[in-house]
Order: sequence, then structure tokens, then C-alpha cells
Amino acid sequence: MNAVDLNCDLGESFGVYHIGNDEDILNDVTSVNVACGFHAGDPAVMRKTVQRALDKNVQIGAHPGLQDLIGFGRRNMKISPQEAYDIVVYQIGALNGFLQSEGGKMQHVKPHGALYNMAAKNKDLSAAIAEAVYKVNPELILFGLSGSELIHAGQAIGLRTASEVFADRTYQQDGSLTPRSEENALIENDNDAVSQVIRMVKEGKVLSQQGIDVPLQADTICIHGDGAHALTFARYVKASLESSDITVKEISGINNG
Amino acid sequence: MNAVDLNCDLGESFGVYHIGNDEDILNDVTSVNVACGFHAGDPAVMRKTVQRALDKNVQIGAHPGLQDLIGFGRRNMKISPQEAYDIVVYQIGALNGFLQSEGGKMQHVKPHGALYNMAAKNKDLSAAIAEAVYKVNPELILFGLSGSELIHAGQAIGLRTASEVFADRTYQQDGSLTPRSEENALIENDNDAVSQVIRMVKEGKVLSQQGIDVPLQADTICIHGDGAHALTFARYVKASLESSDITVKEISGINNG
Amino acid sequence: MNAVDLNCDLGESFGVYHIGNDEDILNDVTSVNVACGFHAGDPAVMRKTVQRALDKNVQIGAHPGLQDLIGFGRRNMKISPQEAYDIVVYQIGALNGFLQSEGGKMQHVKPHGALYNMAAKNKDLSAAIAEAVYKVNPELILFGLSGSELIHAGQAIGLRTASEVFADRTYQQDGSLTPRSEENALIENDNDAVSQVIRMVKEGKVLSQQGIDVPLQADTICIHGDGAHALTFARYVKASLESSDITVKEISGINNG
Amino acid sequence: MNAVDLNCDLGESFGVYHIGNDEDILNDVTSVNVACGFHAGDPAVMRKTVQRALDKNVQIGAHPGLQDLIGFGRRNMKISPQEAYDIVVYQIGALNGFLQSEGGKMQHVKPHGALYNMAAKNKDLSAAIAEAVYKVNPELILFGLSGSELIHAGQAIGLRTASEVFADRTYQQDGSLTPRSEENALIENDNDAVSQVIRMVKEGKVLSQQGIDVPLQADTICIHGDGAHALTFARYVKASLESSDITVKEISGINNG
Repeated sequence: MNAVDLNCDLGESFGVYHIGNDEDILNDVTSVNVACGFHAGDPAVMRKTVQRALDKNVQIGAHPGLQDLIGFGRRNMKISPQEAYDIVVYQIGALNGFLQSEGGKMQHVKPHGALYNMAAKNKDLSAAIAEAVYKVNPELILFGLSGSELIHAGQAIGLRTASEVFADRTYQQDGSLTPRSEENALIENDNDAVSQVIRMVKEGKVLSQQGIDVPLQADTICIHGDGAHALTFARYVKASLESSDITVKEISGINNG
Repeated sequence: MNAVDLNCDLGESFGVYHIGNDEDILNDVTSVNVACGFHAGDPAVMRKTVQRALDKNVQIGAHPGLQDLIGFGRRNMKISPQEAYDIVVYQIGALNGFLQSEGGKMQHVKPHGALYNMAAKNKDLSAAIAEAVYKVNPELILFGLSGSELIHAGQAIGLRTASEVFADRTYQQDGSLTPRSEENALIENDNDAVSQVIRMVKEGKVLSQQGIDVPLQADTICIHGDGAHALTFARYVKASLESSDITVKEISGINNG
Repeated sequence: MNAVDLNCDLGESFGVYHIGNDEDILNDVTSVNVACGFHAGDPAVMRKTVQRALDKNVQIGAHPGLQDLIGFGRRNMKISPQEAYDIVVYQIGALNGFLQSEGGKMQHVKPHGALYNMAAKNKDLSAAIAEAVYKVNPELILFGLSGSELIHAGQAIGLRTASEVFADRTYQQDGSLTPRSEENALIENDNDAVSQVIRMVKEGKVLSQQGIDVPLQADTICIHGDGAHALTFARYVKASLESSDITVKEISGINNG
Repeated sequence: MNAVDLNCDLGESFGVYHIGNDEDILNDVTSVNVACGFHAGDPAVMRKTVQRALDKNVQIGAHPGLQDLIGFGRRNMKISPQEAYDIVVYQIGALNGFLQSEGGKMQHVKPHGALYNMAAKNKDLSAAIAEAVYKVNPELILFGLSGSELIHAGQAIGLRTASEVFADRTYQQDGSLTPRSEENALIENDNDAVSQVIRMVKEGKVLSQQGIDVPLQADTICIHGDGAHALTFARYVKASLESSDITVKEISGINNG
């Protein structure tokens, strides 16, 4: 029987600035990726986010990003592998402070935004990120784009990995996401998104923008938590998966070996 | 027989900006307080600092500060106890990331600059900081000004504490340091500084600026690591202590109960 | 005949983070105070804010704050007068860049949050801020709390000043605002707020929390732009002033000498 | 007769962090590019730098960089032309605040580090930067790498430009600088550097790493101000130029039309 994890970015508020429906989306996902203060989030937000996720028994992961608050970590930066290593260790550690103080345990690490996208295609960056995760704690699960260099790097160093797929994003024939700057990057129609997701989980395939089926592995599905539509969509995805006999559960409980 | 720890702030460089004689001072101290990226330090500097300290078998502590890089964490800010709690948990965690990745163990926490000074006199801030340290790891030793609210708060929550004294700073009759903004804040003469330190360790007393002896406890002595004079002075302090039959060793090995 | 200026803080968004109803509030005020990137705002937000204000013929002022994005510039910091001077010059200059590029002219400067509040009571800080404004451009109008040190400092150096009053805040008998941390800091009832404002403009008096009338000068009224209620309230204040024969117009056009 | 300007980056210190020999290098250059607080510099440093340059009658320019203090603005970032425009307007404005308060006048703008290098090759970025400079003040002179897109963009919009050459950097056959990451990026031998510079000024040519002469225009020569060697080298370059009948003077006074 099929099973899949549902993950969502969380804790992206900063100071007086509020983003996301953090409390609500926690009811519908099984893992959350918590911003660590570089591209978003701050110490107070991190504490509250960890508290909320623990309350709801949702698994917690670090969501390290580039030092680019003003760009929300979405702008590619030419950082060295060593720099990637250092900022990942730092951010995992920082979030782990709150897990220790709140009595929780970190499940996974998922790089954010530009760091995630650059790592997907860059072997050296991916190796550095995977090494950072492994050296802090080899039990952590590394989340990365299905088929990406990050997944390969995680496997190479001996980390458990979770291959991620996106419900509302379209794919290129090389398995990469269509960049947000392009026109058809987003799937606007919820039914289309859900059909894509169910096929990815059940068949391990997605139809790319080039009209060609691309193989992928769907261990975890990325759901967005901000925007008016996000909650409704998350619930719809979850309900649709379950009615298609796909169990939604945390990645730790899924045998994706 | 008397014993005392020698501690020094370390890892205060940032990006291309270099401060301190980090490699050299490590030969003369038994504990280092590593900046955690808020008032100074950055992820790369933190990694290198942890590596160096581990190489030299010097004990490592977190040195959390205010979010004030431009003021080096030295400007008092009206933060709430909750804010103090959150920034301390975050920074301990961040440094701990590098201790985990490098295979080390954190010994202590010493707040930096304005956070240290505000906590010395403020019960609520001190309680919040002590709670942060305790909840992240109750085995950590809390460094604070001898006789300060921070030491009291640490003891109240059940942390082991280390009462700190300063070699080159003068004292007020209430046991506080003469503020740097005042004229006689610093002891310029090395012999005077060393005599003060030895008396503090042996007799538990210091002569305040008001001409009155003030009782204090000297578990650890703060040595500065920057400035041309710092290294010479550190060596002189250490040699003088040893020739006065005071053992210089890490706080963990000192029975200061 | 009575006349008064209505001012509002604007341009407080940052990166992906959105605050305020900037477009709408512009219809109801005569001056806006634009955040300059230290406590809020960023270069893109500043450009758009200047463009919008120019479009609506609303007068533009700089709203310099402390370097405390995470605290929104609301936390008191122990800065020196020289530091206050430098950050005010910098921020006025930065905003002025956008006024030059968009073909506008800056009317005034109003310090933000903790900088405003500290300056209200601190002679040296106020003198430094007034000097910064004067030296960048002696034609600028300095906004400050009515009766505050900032107003005195502005007058002393030869700047035109605008004494500010608050519609929805209560006053202490020394003419200061009741701190937000206290219970009755805000006037929740709109009718009460409007009555207070009309009396301040017409009679130059406000009833303090201590039950004593305090004299003040009402050249400009501060209106808030964020929160669901802000727009409705702004319109109500404006309409009430006008129906009480008080002209709402930009400070430059008011003879408050 | 030949004439050339000598420019140097200045004011790159930040908070307690000190870089450069700012006071000394001012004796040997005719223009300085002042960091504006994004990649380096802070309001206090900017004020002092402007004061020093005015004292020495050295021409002052803005040196806007990326928002990357930790990377000193040297790491390429994928920013949009609009973002480049906004950060350039902001930073010119900020520095201009200090020129106004100190009674000086800005001569030029030279983008820093990665912004300079990206602009050299990117038409859209260059157009945005040139537009930013022009719209703030069309009298400003735009400094850019000789032959670069930035120089073309400046000329296209109607700005006066100054084509910059480097004394101690080697060139590629397309006229670009050899990236610092490559081995022969720097000319270590001072005589070689000076010979290259004199030939660039007199003949308008440089021998590229590929062994081919590349035409360029040398309106201004970039000199570095940090490092022990910098001052000696600056003096040597200046003396050598003068003994080769090349007048060293500020760009405003050079007819490079």
C-alpha cells in the first residue's frame, strides 16, 4: 500500500511581520520545515513554531536558507560549498536549541528556496549540505527534490533521504521544477494538481511541460502554507490522497528504502 | 589549594573583518566564549574557532549577545525576558551545531557585553537567561559576574555556575564593574591588575573604587584576546597565578561548590 | 481659523513581508513618514511609497529609526548622540535618493518609535537629531511630540518644527504619552479619540491620565495606517475635524509660527 | 598630454571592525569610492570618510554594493534590474546625506564587487544602474570597467563615464578581468603592474592572458587601500605615472570626451 508524507514550510514570520497560517496548516501536514532566521523566521517565531508543531505531533525539520532576508532566500547567490556547509550547520543547530529546550527531536532537514534549487543541480553544494547534516546528526533525514543532486549526495554519505515532489508546480523533462519566473510554473487548477500528485505517488511519474513522462519518487509532498487558498488546497490534497488509498503519514514511518 | 579558570572571548571576527589573536590566546586560557553571530562571529568563524579550541583542548562555551552587530552587542537594549530567553536558546543551539559536527561538547554559557551587564543587575532577565541555558542542557555551566543576579538565577534554577572576575577592570563598592564610559574603568598597570587578581582568588576580596573591600568569588578570570597587549598580559597573569600557587585549570575540574 | 496636518507612518513593509494599507491611507492624510530601511522598509518599498505619495500630492518626510528590524525600532537602545546623528543623516539621505529620482522634495523628518520616544526626553539625543536634520537641509520641518525636547532642540537650531499630537493615545500629566506597555495607553473608543483631538487642536489642551489638563500644541495629528480599523478611523478623524471647522492641510501651508 | 585619475575604495570599516589605511591612502589618490553600508561601511564610518576626503580635497563617489555584508558584496546574487536600481538609488542617497551635512558634492558612482562585475557583462543590470545614477543626479560620473556594458549604459543614458583600468589585475582577451578565483588574477610584481598601467594610459592597450593585445580606455586607475603593501604601491604607481609625463588628476578635470 502507498504512503506519503505531507510537508509544509513554517515559521516564516519575522519580528512584527506575519506570514502564513501556521496554526491551521499544522492540522493537515505530517512534517514541517521551520525557517531558521536567515531567509525568514526569528528566535521567537522558531520557539512558537516548535511548540505548536510538538503540540500537534507533527514532525519537525530545519529549513536552512541563504543569508538574504530581504530576498526571502529566493535569490541565487554564488556561495562556496564551505559556506553552504557552515550556514547549514549553524541553522540546524539554532533550531535544535529550541527542540532541546522544548523537549522535542528534529526529524529532517530541507534546504530552502535558492539553496534548495542550487543544490538540486550542483554536486559540490549538495555534497557540502549533506555532509553538514550528517556531521551534526547522521539520524536526520535529508529532504530534496526527487532525482536531484541533493538526494544523491545524501545517499552517498549515508543519510536517509526523502524525495520530494510538488503538488502545484509543473515539471521540466529533466525532472526539475519549471522556474517561478516562467509562465506555466504553477498549476492553478486544484484538480490537475491533485491528479498529478496521485499519479506521482502511485505510478512514480509526472508529465513534464515537454509532454514527456518523467520518473520520480514521491516520499513527501510539498504543500504551501501561505495565501488564502493554501489551507483549502492542503485539505483537498490530503483528502484526495486518502480516498485514493494512499496513507498520509510522517516520513519516519514510511519504508521508502 | 587554590584553582581558577582563565576564560577569553573568541571568534569575534566577521566576514572579511578580523579581530583578535584567536590562535595565540588559546595557549594561555582554559575556557573560551565563542561569539554566536549576533553581536560578532559568523558560521565560518564559529566552525574554525571550535576546531581550534578542540585542537588545543580548551573548553568551549557559547557567548550569546544582543542582535547588534554594528554596536558589537555593547549597547543596552530594552529587551523583554522572553526575548532574552529566545536569543540565548538560539545562539547556544547554533554554536552547538558546530560542536556536534566537530565532535565536541559545550561546557558553559557566558552572555556577552550589554546582555551580561544588564543581566547582572536585572532579576527577570537573569532568570530568563538561566532558564534558557537550563532548558537547552542542564549540564551547562553558567558564567556570570561574581555576586550578580545572573549567578543567583543560575543557582536558583539548579545550574552549576562560575563566578567571574576581571583582571583589568576596576570595581564599584556594590561589586559591579566600573562602566567603560568612566575614567578609571580599566587598570592600565599590569602589576596592579595581577595583584588584584591574585587577591580576588586567594582572599575573595577586591578593593573598590570607593576604597572599600568588596567580597567576591573568583571561579574564572576574564582575559581579553584582542589588542597588541592582550597576549603578553594573558601570559603574565597565568604565570603570576601559578607562581602564587594558584592552579590554572578548566572550571569543570574545579570544585567550587 | 484652525488648521491641522494629518500624518501617518508609511512604507513599513520589508521584502516579502507586507504591513499597512499604504495606498488607501494616502487618501486621508496630508503628510507621510516613510520608513528608511533601518527599523522597517527597504529600497523597493521606499521607491514605491515615494511614487504613491507623489501621485496623491501628499507631503513626504523621512522616518528614521534604530537599527533594529527585528524589534521594529521600538526597543530603546543606549545609543550616543553621535550615533543618533549618523543614523539620521544616513536615513534622510537614503530616502532623499528616491525623492530625487522620482522628482519630489522632502518636507519633514519624524524620528520613529524608540528614537522618537528617547529623543522626547533626552536633550543630547534631541540636539543631535536636530543638528542632523539641519545640516542635511535647514528647510526640513522637524516633527516631534508636542512639548518634547525634540521640539525644543529643533527650535534652538533654527528648524521649523511641527508639534505632534496623538488621536488614539492617552497622555501623562508631564505631556508624555502613556507607554504602550501600560493598560490605558490606547483610546479604544473612536468618539473619545476624536473629542480629544478636536480639543487639542481648538483649545491646546488634553486631559491627562492623572485628571489634570495638560497644555500642548497640535500642528499635526498622528494617524496609524495598519490594522483593519485604521482606515475607517482616519476618515472619521478627518471628517470630524472638518465638521468642527478645522481645516486639514499639509503642515507647510499652516502658519504655526 | 596624458592625464589619469587614481581611485581607491574607502570607508570599508564597520562597527568595531577596521579595514584599510583610509587616512594615508587619501594622500595618493584623486577620487575615492565610499562604501554605503550594504557590503561594508556604516553611518559613522561614512561620515568620517567624507570628512577626511573633503579635508584632503579628494573627490568623493558612492560605492554601492549588494546587501551582503558577510560576503563583502563579492558574491554574485541573482538580483533583478529593478532591485539593482533600487539599491543604487538608496546608497547614493545615503552617502549624499553626509555630503550635504558636511558641505561637499558627490562626483561619481562606482558599483562595488559583484555588482560591478555582474554589471560589466549584463546589459539589463547596467541599464538599471545607469538609470538610477542618472535619475538621482545626471551630473554624476559613472565609473565602470573599460569596455564594459556599464560604460555603454552610462553613455547611452547621457551620463559622463570614466573607464576604469586595474593596475594589479590581469586581463582576459575579451577585456574582462581575470576572476580572483583563477591563478594569475593578480600581478604580484610591482614593476609589471606599473608597466601595464603606463601602457594602458599611453597606448590604450593591455596584453591579455591569452597573449593578445586588448584595446581599452584608461580614464581612472583602481588602487587598493588595504593590505600592508597598498600604500607603498599606490605611491609607486603615482610616481611612475608622473615620471612618464602622465598627469594624475581628478576625473572631473580630465577631458575624456
